[in-house]
Amino acid sequence: MDETPASDPAPVVGMVGAGQLARMTSGPAAGLGICFRVLAAAADDSAAQVAAESVIGDYRSLPDLMAFAAGCDVVTFDHEHVPGPLVEAMEAAGHAVRPGSAPLRYTQDKQAMRQRLTELGYACPRHAPVSDLAGVTSFAAEAGWPVVLKAVTGGYDGRGVWVCGGPDEAAEVLSHGLTLIAEEYIRFDRELAILVARAPSGQGAAYPVVQTVQQDGICREVVAPAPGLAPGLAAHAQGLGLAIARDLGVIGLLAVELFETGGRLVINELAMRPHNSGHWTIEGAVTSQFEQHLRAVLNLPLGSPALASRYSVMVNILGGEDPDLRSRLTHVMAADPAVKVHLYGKPVRPGRKVGHVTALGRDLDQVRGRARRAASYLADGTEDEGDFR
Amino acid sequence: MDETPASDPAPVVGMVGAGQLARMTSGPAAGLGICFRVLAAAADDSAAQVAAESVIGDYRSLPDLMAFAAGCDVVTFDHEHVPGPLVEAMEAAGHAVRPGSAPLRYTQDKQAMRQRLTELGYACPRHAPVSDLAGVTSFAAEAGWPVVLKAVTGGYDGRGVWVCGGPDEAAEVLSHGLTLIAEEYIRFDRELAILVARAPSGQGAAYPVVQTVQQDGICREVVAPAPGLAPGLAAHAQGLGLAIARDLGVIGLLAVELFETGGRLVINELAMRPHNSGHWTIEGAVTSQFEQHLRAVLNLPLGSPALASRYSVMVNILGGEDPDLRSRLTHVMAADPAVKVHLYGKPVRPGRKVGHVTALGRDLDQVRGRARRAASYLADGTEDEGDFR
Repeated sequence: MDETPASDPAPVVGMVGAGQLARMTSGPAAGLGICFRVLAAAADDSAAQVAAESVIGDYRSLPDLMAFAAGCDVVTFDHEHVPGPLVEAMEAAGHAVRPGSAPLRYTQDKQAMRQRLTELGYACPRHAPVSDLAGVTSFAAEAGWPVVLKAVTGGYDGRGVWVCGGPDEAAEVLSHGLTLIAEEYIRFDRELAILVARAPSGQGAAYPVVQTVQQDGICREVVAPAPGLAPGLAAHAQGLGLAIARDLGVIGLLAVELFETGGRLVINELAMRPHNSGHWTIEGAVTSQFEQHLRAVLNLPLGSPALASRYSVMVNILGGEDPDLRSRLTHVMAADPAVKVHLYGKPVRPGRKVGHVTALGRDLDQVRGRARRAASYLADGTEDEGDFR
Repeated sequence: MDETPASDPAPVVGMVGAGQLARMTSGPAAGLGICFRVLAAAADDSAAQVAAESVIGDYRSLPDLMAFAAGCDVVTFDHEHVPGPLVEAMEAAGHAVRPGSAPLRYTQDKQAMRQRLTELGYACPRHAPVSDLAGVTSFAAEAGWPVVLKAVTGGYDGRGVWVCGGPDEAAEVLSHGLTLIAEEYIRFDRELAILVARAPSGQGAAYPVVQTVQQDGICREVVAPAPGLAPGLAAHAQGLGLAIARDLGVIGLLAVELFETGGRLVINELAMRPHNSGHWTIEGAVTSQFEQHLRAVLNLPLGSPALASRYSVMVNILGGEDPDLRSRLTHVMAADPAVKVHLYGKPVRPGRKVGHVTALGRDLDQVRGRARRAASYLADGTEDEGDFR
């Protein structure tokens, strides 16, 4: 040891993007003694409001990305919209980018994702690139109507996805001139998601499988663990997540959205970052997904993904007509002192995710009712416990 | 409603002091959508490393405090060292200071605290102001040796407290010229602590009573809930905490350190801020003490203080000879994926609190062993499970 020993400096993790995922990563970063920095579009971005170090820049600008990466030990992402060539350029310059450009490509190009997963033998909906109505009707002749058309790049939260009941609707989508892929419409029993983490060491960890409820392509509710899921199917889903992470070379988190249909699992979407289906882990798991992502990208041993409660239900708060969320916070806190509220600091716009609530407990119906009431009241002042579907 | 409705702006909570308590408050502040600001002595203070808004200033300077308070909706504290007249000046200027100068006085003046609590009928050790050896020996003639001498102001973490076995030791302490109070030495069975919160609305909430283990006046270990505590005594302690908070007019958190002796509870110390005896609440309670403090000072309904796990054990990480904490983090994380590590970003100095670990579970011996091993290894690379006493 030196005569004047000094502490190792704290590693600097830079997250490109400053939305709620980066915001919720900042707390765990402090706990791990990590220096956490975000590349924000503006000083009032959700994460820039709370992170000690925000750099204002454009994630589509190579100079901005390179300047940001230069100050970081590891670069990671709050979203998947950084153009692939810019991710490659950061890697070529020697920066540790996690996940790297090779796996990230499969979150940015749905055609490449479907093709690669199918090559690897994973169950996907039938799919084909389509460029005109003849292509769509030809695909529909095999897969049947409705046909799902997806923009190959740029979609999220239901944007870039169209369920077309027939040729007229398909023609309307085709008229926008996007590069599209056609997919078989899966008549699912329900939607599930599996969240795993993978470190450069090769270590992997899988959270319990959750059930998700989407509405208009936006995640509304997540139940952990997925109630009534056959143990064999749960183990299969966890294995699937870990195997895909390994096969694609993912470092960090990987969320795989799944359709459960007739006892089978079919892959819907991939995300390689903290994911809405994992927000429940903040209170409901021993290690939150945000801490887990930091551990993984820093090649630290992964934390336990075990449940901390019998059931956790997370419900997103979607903006309503009245933007004054905060005035309703008091009511929600008084009505249920155990519900956990997470606000994102984002201006309220109708339909926008502006926060979420999580309830925990042993009785699923009670837990779900509590989470739904709190989220509904925060959104618009009603206490709607109705099913989202 | 206005035609152009706008969200309520986020309330600004300013915390004077930027140590680990402020650091650990920043995460919950983000979750509640609060704008959290710290008054730091330096830019690399523990909380200034992670808070989005740090103001550099001196907590002993009225202009610095007034400028800080001017930008805040509520001012609160990471420590009790702000001189009383300056707190009063902030209040006189109309700032919401929580807790206020009236209750804070009892954390700053041990003589006033003992006198007021005794007047109110709370069980304290026998005590008397002393200014010379004759006073101490006269006190000892009634209370017996050893006598505890305490600096009336400025002590913390065991500083300012001397256990004197006889007149020689007392004379040595007296020679420093401090204003002192003499207290009866309590032969306690164990030390307990009760943590409560109180809001301006009058609402109070009490956490389960914990057992604390102090060594050289520094908190080493906290077990929640206090094992084997008689239910009647637990309820008495919770009532005691809530009653003292009400009687002294505390807003925010109040920690009461207690001696358990022969089935009785005797009050040792008070603190009116997040407290080391409450760090376990981050994972071990439904609402962490840091979130609870924010709710209380903002007059939001208090969160549930219920246990989230059968047992929680928190062990402080004290700096050892080797400052390189981080190199040992990997081992600890790999050895126990479920132990929760909290680092404070402070340079390691022997004996200094530089972080803590918390373990949760159903078997107290196992949980305590896990927490002790992790903290010991982080401190100095050994896995000492020995008792701290």
